[in-house]
Amino acid sequence: MTNIRQLHSRDKDFDAQLERLLAWESVADTGVETTVAEILQQVRERGDAAVIEYTNRFDRRELQSAQDFCLPSEVLAAALERISSTEREALEAAAVRVREYHQRQLQQSWQYTEADGTVLGQQITPMERVGIYVPGGKASYPSSVLMNAIPAVVAGVDCVTMVVPAPDNQLNDLVLAAAAIAGVDRLYTIGGAQAVAALAYGTGSVARVDKIVGPGNIFVAAAKRAVFGQVAIDMIAGPSEILVICDGKTDPDWVAMDLLSQAEHDQQAQSILVSPDKDFLKAVADSLQRQLAELPRRDIAAESLAGRGALIAVENLDEAIVLANRIAPEHLEVSVENPERYLPQIRHAGAIFLGRHTAEALGDYCAGPNHVLPTSGTARFSSPLGVYDFQKRSSVIYCSPRGADQLGRVAATLARGEGLEAHARSAEYRVKE
Amino acid sequence: MTNIRQLHSRDKDFDAQLERLLAWESVADTGVETTVAEILQQVRERGDAAVIEYTNRFDRRELQSAQDFCLPSEVLAAALERISSTEREALEAAAVRVREYHQRQLQQSWQYTEADGTVLGQQITPMERVGIYVPGGKASYPSSVLMNAIPAVVAGVDCVTMVVPAPDNQLNDLVLAAAAIAGVDRLYTIGGAQAVAALAYGTGSVARVDKIVGPGNIFVAAAKRAVFGQVAIDMIAGPSEILVICDGKTDPDWVAMDLLSQAEHDQQAQSILVSPDKDFLKAVADSLQRQLAELPRRDIAAESLAGRGALIAVENLDEAIVLANRIAPEHLEVSVENPERYLPQIRHAGAIFLGRHTAEALGDYCAGPNHVLPTSGTARFSSPLGVYDFQKRSSVIYCSPRGADQLGRVAATLARGEGLEAHARSAEYRVKE
Repeated sequence: MTNIRQLHSRDKDFDAQLERLLAWESVADTGVETTVAEILQQVRERGDAAVIEYTNRFDRRELQSAQDFCLPSEVLAAALERISSTEREALEAAAVRVREYHQRQLQQSWQYTEADGTVLGQQITPMERVGIYVPGGKASYPSSVLMNAIPAVVAGVDCVTMVVPAPDNQLNDLVLAAAAIAGVDRLYTIGGAQAVAALAYGTGSVARVDKIVGPGNIFVAAAKRAVFGQVAIDMIAGPSEILVICDGKTDPDWVAMDLLSQAEHDQQAQSILVSPDKDFLKAVADSLQRQLAELPRRDIAAESLAGRGALIAVENLDEAIVLANRIAPEHLEVSVENPERYLPQIRHAGAIFLGRHTAEALGDYCAGPNHVLPTSGTARFSSPLGVYDFQKRSSVIYCSPRGADQLGRVAATLARGEGLEAHARSAEYRVKE
Repeated sequence: MTNIRQLHSRDKDFDAQLERLLAWESVADTGVETTVAEILQQVRERGDAAVIEYTNRFDRRELQSAQDFCLPSEVLAAALERISSTEREALEAAAVRVREYHQRQLQQSWQYTEADGTVLGQQITPMERVGIYVPGGKASYPSSVLMNAIPAVVAGVDCVTMVVPAPDNQLNDLVLAAAAIAGVDRLYTIGGAQAVAALAYGTGSVARVDKIVGPGNIFVAAAKRAVFGQVAIDMIAGPSEILVICDGKTDPDWVAMDLLSQAEHDQQAQSILVSPDKDFLKAVADSLQRQLAELPRRDIAAESLAGRGALIAVENLDEAIVLANRIAPEHLEVSVENPERYLPQIRHAGAIFLGRHTAEALGDYCAGPNHVLPTSGTARFSSPLGVYDFQKRSSVIYCSPRGADQLGRVAATLARGEGLEAHARSAEYRVKE
């Protein structure tokens, strides 16, 4: 039996209720931070030796040398042969679609020439080396390998390095197969803060990378935060969330299962349904109850729904959209008639799923767009992981003598206003008398 | 008298020398972090009251209420009238060029329709609220106001909030005038970690923002790092740097002044010249000596050159470019004949200044491109501040029934491979039998 919270946007204390519902913050555990700081320092100073020690200790392994955590490409190829042909075909079909979609994100260098001959622009280039963190054990998802690695490969990154821990020497064949399909260049079977440190600082056997992406536990998140600046990192992800807006005309079983697909991720995951149709909300509540019972992960999903789920009644669909912008959900399903009508009003969401047929789960695996999305309201300022995360820009300025003359006068005035005389003189050398 | 380091790329220990030259790390001071954590918590809990207390204490002010740190727009307009017409014209000319350049960075939403009617794309929207931190006192630069605020305004951000401390009630008219010209919407005369906290969490009088950009002292940098995730932040900047590559045919006085213009910023700034022409290196060394003596900020520049500057002899220009990519400088001047020939080989640099007439100082003020650039080698993975920093993307997926049928099968296979049954069922509801 699940008790999912039922709210009404016209409730007197709705704002406070909503705030409580959405409240989530990663625990800033100073114990974790101290441990991570020590691991980072050890790896920075002692390189592979420290990586080996921590890996043997935390992952119960018996590595003798760095060689032992470098996975040769034959192992990836072998995994690809070992998985079922149905799984292999599904992974390959997903990879093709993800690749095609991401190719549209490639940004091109641009420049323009002004009347006096001065050229301005931006040169866009890929990063050289990128590290992908893939969790081990139960949270080891082949789809995450595709979603993190393919944008880097499409961007033209020279070397995509993946790290995945192998606790008790266990590795997931689907994960290895996905790495082969995605085009990962190097794979190390290490994890935790020690793997983040190896990627950020480099060791004898692991080349330092420019950016680290991918999800991980609290130690991985703390390590990524600590090395931020030394390398680039992606956003630190919170629990997964879905907000479904429905006009009441989608099959309640479909919508209930969409909510459950989010809730089964983990106890902290958040599933919210917003509808102006109260009978529909009731029907979905009943369906949740019924369908939950049949799920292998029903305990997790029930805890998620009871703790963080909600069914919210609103007056109309426009109000639902306003609410969605306020929540800025990771996943937004707009399960209504003519959903494209609402798209221009949607301002903050990681991914928008339009129409009754677009289950959020399609976006998790194979629709094409990335499943690494901003969580916990960070869609207000963040974007899905993309090719643009692995490209960077350099400004280009090429002044003609006449352009330098004009600009030099302006620059000299402003530089003197800031008390920077050498700036002014440097500009004035290019000014004709 | 300045002793600038002289290196040769063929020196036996050149790699080690270069590493020492480039080594720079912001001091991770736990005292600062503890202070900042306390300030953040106080502002988060007590809002304006805490902001007022800290501001009165640190900036020696006598604020009675939040009203006292809100600067009405009339004050900005008045500053614009007070500055000289030359300065006003220079600021306005710079703003026009910066605006024009940044308009080319605006990214547009895109979508495409597949054969089965499924629509995929990305919707690009501006952030709602952005906070610009502007340092007070001596480091208060009007050009920084333009460079930080204009991209946000061009992106279409609804409200651009600027904070600038007013120690001893002092404010810089040029900074206020620049805020008026750039189109800043709200201005608060607060600074330090308390201003960052007010922007990140919101207070009774300061609306919470989505992103905080702009330079600041060590307290501001620590506060930005701490609120990262709650809001977006820009890169945490290190000292400014220039790398000049010269074929030996630019006037040595010009190149020396370019190096000095970087060195005068602060003692930690870094100026490096690379040339295959040893006589030219000698001529620049002499010119540095001579021109340094005439600068108001000669003490700062001399310390910078002696501590962090270098003249590096290389065998040829191609080797110079390889070196530049290794250093990934904030500013790269390519002061050679036919500089465009080298552009495709330049992989890592914040901004590239091509040709003998393109003084780096032009980029600081008015060429058009942003002067907020990645420092300390972070051009390997970061870009100049731009309009793209204030826009974000939402994936758009709209499956046709036929598309959902095809994708549902693939998704269900992959979901079961990951043990996520509700995902599989949610996808399969949209598969036709």
